[in-house]
Amino acid sequence: MTADKILNNDIELDLILQRQIDVPKDKVWKALTEPELVKEWFCPKPWKTTECRIDLRPGGEFYTNMQGPDGEGHSGASCFLEIVPQERLVWTTSLQPGYRPSPLPATDAHSCESLMFTCIITLAEKDGGTKYVAHVMHSTPEQKIQHEEMGFEEGWGATITQLEELLKHEKV
Amino acid sequence: MTADKILNNDIELDLILQRQIDVPKDKVWKALTEPELVKEWFCPKPWKTTECRIDLRPGGEFYTNMQGPDGEGHSGASCFLEIVPQERLVWTTSLQPGYRPSPLPATDAHSCESLMFTCIITLAEKDGGTKYVAHVMHSTPEQKIQHEEMGFEEGWGATITQLEELLKHEKV
Repeated sequence: MTADKILNNDIELDLILQRQIDVPKDKVWKALTEPELVKEWFCPKPWKTTECRIDLRPGGEFYTNMQGPDGEGHSGASCFLEIVPQERLVWTTSLQPGYRPSPLPATDAHSCESLMFTCIITLAEKDGGTKYVAHVMHSTPEQKIQHEEMGFEEGWGATITQLEELLKHEKV
Repeated sequence: MTADKILNNDIELDLILQRQIDVPKDKVWKALTEPELVKEWFCPKPWKTTECRIDLRPGGEFYTNMQGPDGEGHSGASCFLEIVPQERLVWTTSLQPGYRPSPLPATDAHSCESLMFTCIITLAEKDGGTKYVAHVMHSTPEQKIQHEEMGFEEGWGATITQLEELLKHEKV
């Protein structure tokens, strides 16, 4: 599958990360949806995910608190939209838990808080492992570019490597 | 049911419209979800809803185009989040169809386009008719007040009266 075959992909607005993960998809699903596992891989080291809450249902909470090596931090809640176990997970920063609209972002163009996006993760069995696709949708080209410049590809890529390493070396 | 018993209601952030509609709820549900019926009642007269598209599934489109008596207009697409036939309908202006984040609102504080809200409509059988509750959630007190000042109660109230009149006088 190439990026342009992803349903509703708009190359002006969307970022795509695709990876082959050499771990079965039931384990990948666990790592995506169990808070104690999410904390192990969800932000690129040396940052740490110090808290995670997951209420895995449409309208449910996806909360993370992340801490940087120099004490800087970022926390925030998103809202789950669709959950198809082992296949599809959709969540958005545009809504808070219970579907309440998120406060409008600050005008500071390069803070995490100023980004709104919806993430559609799909998993498929492939070659004994898992094909992972994250389709990240923005409202405008400016928001896409901002996310790109914040290091989307490198950052999300690093976290998926961390996820894979976790699943290869720990009994999940 | 009083407003403070509505699930997750926050009086600082939410607007509630409750009405007894003397029509069975299967008909009310039709009027909420069939485009040709929605066009008959969705905006307070003398405004008209000239177009309506409904794709009744989570992630589906809810589009309306409204025209005022002097040629002014407003159109926009929202996104359905939950559909429980004859019981519960949830949609948000924070997302576009397919869950894409909506563009950030303009700074003009009193245009429809600057409002983001999620609407949870619930229907329940009562006294041979239908208890209708619209729970409209905002991100901030400012957004709630803006919606209130735009005439939420009067406007939405008028449309529900139109809906009831339609269902009483037309075969649906």
